[in-house]
Parts: sequence; C-alpha cells; structure tokens
Amino acid sequence: MILGRGTSAGVVASRRTTPPGVLLMALIVQKYGGSSVADAESIKRVAKRIVDTRRAGHEVVVAVSAMGDTTDELLDLAGQVAPIPAPRELDMLLSSGERISMALLAMAIHSMGFEARSFTGSQAGMITDATHGAARIVDVTPIRLREALDEGAIVIVAGFQGFNRDTRDITTLGRGGSDTTAVALAAALKADVCEIYSDVDGIFTADPRVVPLARKLDRVGSEEMLELAANGAKVLYIRAVEYARRHGVLIHARSTFSPNEGTWVLDPSKKSPLVPEGATMEEPIVAGVATDLSQAKITVIGVPDVPGKAADIFKIVAKSGANVDMIVQNVSAAATGRTDISFTLPKTDASVALKALAGEQAEVGFQSLVHDDQIGKLSVVGAGMRTHSGVSATLFEALSLAGVNIEMISTSEIRISVVVRGVDLAEAARLVHTAYGLDGDAEATVHAGTGR
Amino acid sequence: MILGRGTSAGVVASRRTTPPGVLLMALIVQKYGGSSVADAESIKRVAKRIVDTRRAGHEVVVAVSAMGDTTDELLDLAGQVAPIPAPRELDMLLSSGERISMALLAMAIHSMGFEARSFTGSQAGMITDATHGAARIVDVTPIRLREALDEGAIVIVAGFQGFNRDTRDITTLGRGGSDTTAVALAAALKADVCEIYSDVDGIFTADPRVVPLARKLDRVGSEEMLELAANGAKVLYIRAVEYARRHGVLIHARSTFSPNEGTWVLDPSKKSPLVPEGATMEEPIVAGVATDLSQAKITVIGVPDVPGKAADIFKIVAKSGANVDMIVQNVSAAATGRTDISFTLPKTDASVALKALAGEQAEVGFQSLVHDDQIGKLSVVGAGMRTHSGVSATLFEALSLAGVNIEMISTSEIRISVVVRGVDLAEAARLVHTAYGLDGDAEATVHAGTGR
Repeated sequence: MILGRGTSAGVVASRRTTPPGVLLMALIVQKYGGSSVADAESIKRVAKRIVDTRRAGHEVVVAVSAMGDTTDELLDLAGQVAPIPAPRELDMLLSSGERISMALLAMAIHSMGFEARSFTGSQAGMITDATHGAARIVDVTPIRLREALDEGAIVIVAGFQGFNRDTRDITTLGRGGSDTTAVALAAALKADVCEIYSDVDGIFTADPRVVPLARKLDRVGSEEMLELAANGAKVLYIRAVEYARRHGVLIHARSTFSPNEGTWVLDPSKKSPLVPEGATMEEPIVAGVATDLSQAKITVIGVPDVPGKAADIFKIVAKSGANVDMIVQNVSAAATGRTDISFTLPKTDASVALKALAGEQAEVGFQSLVHDDQIGKLSVVGAGMRTHSGVSATLFEALSLAGVNIEMISTSEIRISVVVRGVDLAEAARLVHTAYGLDGDAEATVHAGTGR
Repeated sequence: MILGRGTSAGVVASRRTTPPGVLLMALIVQKYGGSSVADAESIKRVAKRIVDTRRAGHEVVVAVSAMGDTTDELLDLAGQVAPIPAPRELDMLLSSGERISMALLAMAIHSMGFEARSFTGSQAGMITDATHGAARIVDVTPIRLREALDEGAIVIVAGFQGFNRDTRDITTLGRGGSDTTAVALAAALKADVCEIYSDVDGIFTADPRVVPLARKLDRVGSEEMLELAANGAKVLYIRAVEYARRHGVLIHARSTFSPNEGTWVLDPSKKSPLVPEGATMEEPIVAGVATDLSQAKITVIGVPDVPGKAADIFKIVAKSGANVDMIVQNVSAAATGRTDISFTLPKTDASVALKALAGEQAEVGFQSLVHDDQIGKLSVVGAGMRTHSGVSATLFEALSLAGVNIEMISTSEIRISVVVRGVDLAEAARLVHTAYGLDGDAEATVHAGTGR
C-alpha cells in the first residue's frame, strides 16, 4: 500500500503503522536554492541527496533555482543590450537560468541510475497571471508531474517561473519565486512535506549574525513564521510561507549541507506523522526576535490636528507606491493645534514617498518633513503572547536597562515591534533574546545568504 | 498593396512595378550564427541590422543561434555532472542557449523603438520527431509568428530547437540546426528570401584559406550548392540547402559585417524579383572547387573476386554506422582471382568500420585491411558539366602537370571528385581553380568559421 498521498487516510494509516518521523512512502517536494547548485560539484551533491530520498522509498519532486549568480549575470547582460529591458523578454531570458540548472540536475540523477525528468514552469502546469517579473500563481495543473511520478521518475521542476494561458508567454514569479514554486507544487500534489533547502540549518530564534547565542527552532507556527519573515527573518520568503499557511502545506526548512533536522513550519493545530511528537510539547511564549535595518522613518511635522489629515497623508504615500509599516501619531500640542505623524517604510521607498508628500505640502498644510534612515526595528514574535501577559513589560525593561531609547512601538496579536537607533539594534537584540530565555548554550554557526 | 508573400501573383506584380533587386514589402527570414551574437555589442549590431530591414518596409523573422561558445560551455557543464548525459535533458539544457540570445536580441530591438517578440522552438511551431540531439522537422506551424507579424512585430525565433508532439519534450536539430530552422520557417511562412548571415561574405569558388584567389559567387544553383556543401564547403549546411531546394526557398548567404550582397542560392529555372537580373546571365561551366581533408581511406586487400563480396563488405560497413563516400574496385588480378576494394569515409567513422570489417574477415575471406588518413579530396562542381564535355580532361591535365597523383575518382552528373595525397590538396586546388578560369583579380579576405 502506498501511503502519504497526503490524504487523511494515508496519513492516519502511516501514523498507526510507523513510528513518528517516518512515513513508509511519502510524496516529498524539495527546493534547492542557487547557492545549493552553484557548480557541477554542488549539483552532484544535491543529486545524491535527492537519490537518497528516493532510495528511502519516497516520491520526490524538486524545485530548483538558477545556478549561483546566473540570474545576476543574465540581468547584467540585459542591462548591456537595453537600458529598460522589455518585461516579456526579460522573463524569457531569466527563465533560462532554471532550465540550465534543472537539466543538469536531472542528468546528474540519471547518471546515478535513477529515472529523472525535468520540466519547465509551463510543462509543470504552473499557471500565472500576465504580470511579468512578479507573476501571481492562479492555478497549478501538475498533470505531467503526476504522470512522471507514477512512472517512478524523480521530477525536477524549474523554480521561479510559470506561464500565462492568455498570452501563452513565459512569466517569472519575482523575489522568492522558487520557494513559492515548491510550496505551490506541494499543495497541488498534496505532498506530505515541502523541504526548503538552503545553506542555513533552519529558522533561528534570531539572526545568528546578530545574536551569536541564537538557537535553531525545532518547529515554529506558520503565523509566527509569517511575522518573523515579515519583520526581517530571511530564511523563508513571506510569500511562500503565506501560500503554505493558506493551503496547509507542511514546510521543513533545512540545510543542504547537513543531514540534521531543520525547522518544521506548521499550523500548531494540525499534526503530521513526519513531525517528531516530542517537538509538539514545547510551546514557548516567544518564538524569536527579528531584526530589520532595511527601514527608514519619515516624520511629517506640524500637521493640522483636524480629522482626516492622517488619511490624506497616507493616501498620498500609498499612491506613491510606498509600503508603510509602522505609524505613530504624537499627542497634539494644544497651543499650536498641530501634531507630528511618523511612519516607517522600506528605505528603497523613502524617496518616492518624500517626493509625493512634498508635492502636496500646501494641500495637506503640514510644516515640514524629516527623513531618518538610521533606524533599526526589533520585533518579538510568539503565539504565546495571546495567552500570556507581561511579554511587553519584559521587552521594555530589557531595553531600558540597556539604555536603549524606544522611538516607535507597534503590536499585533503575536508580535511587539519597536524602532530604535540602528546602531543600538544588535545589542538590543542580544539583551532581549537573553531576557526571554532564548539563549542557547553554544554559538550558532553562521553561513552566507541563501539563493532565491 | 502588400507584395512579396511569395505568391507568384505577388512576385510577378512586384517585378513589374519595381526594379530588379527590390521588393516593395517582402517577408524576409534572417539567420544569425553564434559568432554574430557573441556578446552584447554584437547583439546590438545585429539588432540594428534587423531594424534597418524593418525600416525598409519588410516583415522580418529572425532565427538566432546561441551566443558564441555558450553551447560548448553547456556541453562542458553536462560532461562534468554526467559522463553520458541523458539525451532528453541534454536537449533541455542546450536549448536554453538560444533562449538567452533570442531574448537579448528582442530586448535590443525593443529598446530601438521597434516591437519585437521572441519565441522558443515550440512556441514557433517547430515540430520534430523525438530523436533527441538530431531531431528531424516533421511539421512547421508558425501560427503565433504569423500573428505577431500581422501585429507589426519583428519575430525572433530560437534556432536549433523544436519539440515533439507525442512526448511534449524539447528537441534539438543537431549540427547546422539554426540554418535549418531559418529555411524551414522561410518555407512555412512563404518568405521571399532566407538570408543566412555569417562572418564570411558568401559562397566562394573555393575556400579562400586554401585558394587565395577564390572569388565570391554572385549566385549558385541549389544543386551545385548541395554538391559543394557535401564535398567540403562550410558556409552552408547541406541539410538546410537540401530543405531549401525541396521547398523552393531562395537563400541569400551574406556577411553580418558588411552591407554587400552575398551569394544567392536558387533553382536556376526559377526567377526571383530579389535576385539581380544581370547575375542570371552568367552560367559558368564550373561553379567552384571544393576541398575536404576530413576523410580517410580504407582498402580491403585480397577480396575473392566472386559476385556478392562487395555487397558483403558494404553491408558490414553500413551496419557499423559509418558513412561511405567514394568507392573504387581495382580490376582483378587474373592469377590470384582476388581484387582490392577501396572506399573513403569520414575520419571519425574509420575506427568503427575497421573494427567491424576485421570482425568478419573470415566470413568475407579478404586478406588484410589498410587504413590511410592522409588523403585529401578535391571536387569540381558545375551544372555546366551536364552540357559541356572536356571538363574532366581539364582537371586531369591540371593535376598531371602539377605531378599530383590521382588515387581515386568518382563523378556525379555535375561533379568530379578525386582523392589525392593530403599534402598535395592545397596546391592541386589552386592549380585546378586557375585551370577552370575561376581566379579572381585580388586575394579574398579570410574570416574565422561561422556559428552553428
């Protein structure tokens, strides 16, 4: 009997018949980033890993990124022939990167004696809208992949790309596209797990480059993962995590370079025969501390304190295409009848937002604009916050003891974020990490960034 | 009125209303080899040339090869990950080369203010059989290309590749694939002309590297071109020429690096408004002299002079996969009742043929095998041979005056080929070239080889 089609029947049965952490035969989707397939040697290493998974009796579908810097090199070439490359052609160009890596990976597996077939985004049925460079997945019809799996083949799919039914053109998914490809395939094929491989061991309680005592998390809730990704954690792309959450895909973030378990990202209310039961016990109040130096702060000074002014301001900012994150409005100085409004946004969006606001200064009637790109954002994330009080107190106490000034505060159900001086961010993160009892016993090993 | 759809009506009309060599609006297919798009600069130069053709009022479809050494680099990568790469995956890998060059070319044209769209082999409707690495074209359905042209776009197509309807897999056409793509598109779209661009000025009366006084031909008959290509001429691939002949496609072989007319390859019985009338007057007895150093000679010594022995020998050779070219059987020495049979074949096929023959020596009953890879083949090609006598006499006389010994002779309706010592080939070619009055006034400029 073949289990692990992801049908509840299959899962229940397998949990009865096998110890936790093991499925007799699962359907496993694996994603390997560019740094995992940077050269012929890495490709062979990855091929070996895939073959081992197949040998263990599992069906394997692999989403792969372009080799190493291929995408940047292609972008560079494009820039040389055209100042502003035509989006349709840019997608045609960039999508060739994954075709190279997937074909090489399939060859490598083939030469190890296993049947492997590579498929482009369109062959894999990755159907998107027509937004070149940032296409959204509208449907996944992995008919050919299912056929190949049923014939016993290992399936390799080009990450990052899809195609549009109306224009019949090739599209690319944009940043984090390969993660999204993997998760979308896992959902469409009802895979038991989607393994996202990178050169880090999993999700940490903090960025080990900032907090040396950061610990790897055995598991993290998908909502917590969303908040961590949204607030600076780099390992997983928020888009893929969101897709996984919506479609109930179990993610296992782990390292290409080690056999160890990584971090399971899942809905805590759901169980999976693959996730060690032991891990389910632990339910920390705080899952992790995220840091982000990529934001800037804009303060609109002397805004007439009358209804609707804030709305005016953020309408203008939104129209400029800038993405506002945190917002703080000071209490009005009675004397002047004016107030200041501060907000944060990606540094890259700051200039357009400033330009847009300056253009409407007269209409809005504010006095001046202050731009500050020396800020750092620290976020504490934990599902436990819903049920535990005093979480914020711990944060504020730790920061005050360190003499770190808090400039802005925002909270969600499971997150508290504060804006501090950028130069204070690292120390603040270390102290807060300690204050919540997240420190590990040894320093975590640090790696370079992962591929797209 | 739009002329030049290649319909006789269109052509006739255009010939009436416009001077020779000009069509008001033609459909022109252009092919650019790898050396013509080796880097960003070359791509921009080619884009400029395409745009100029469009500006002249013509519809343009371009078949492009992979950039410079891309294909070799990809082959090298494949070799690193797999000793014998899976053919399906190798085609998937190699086909990415043209996707890169075509997208870059389309971008470059786009940035010059002209609408351009690139299409993969499958998008272009290049349907082949399933023979990976050497697929044969079975059908061409350029529906999307026709649509794009009708919308005023310049069409760029990935050369060298197609796809198979049954397996739905990507295929490649093998050696000379991009030439064949261009000619096949020209036939399917009823183009007025298929321009094959390379880094040489056209077809020469001989290889200028061997015969410095070789002249560029203004035009050459398609049958003559076939014989020249089959006997060592490198500029056009025989497969493309044969396809063009069968489908009545007019080829114009010219240089990417010069605006000058190149060589028109056409059926002399047909006329085209594009081909200068003047050229149609000249009907040389000999079109050119082809040289070939890529062949070897095998002599089977002491073959029993009884019926069927030659058949046995060439059945064995054919089964080994070797391609036999010339065959000579000496008169039997009455005393021994044995004879010798010599034949030529590509040097690369020699070892398999020798192995196969040696394996059956007992059955066939020959005495020994002699392998000679120091031969050169010289061919004189000219449609005039059909009607003029004495052509061969001129050849033999020139060679004997030069003291060059003829080892083998074979003839077709429009060709005489002789095998000589390899070291004598160049001088023999120069003398024969002179003997037939083919010498030009000045030395031809020599270029490197062209892309696939």
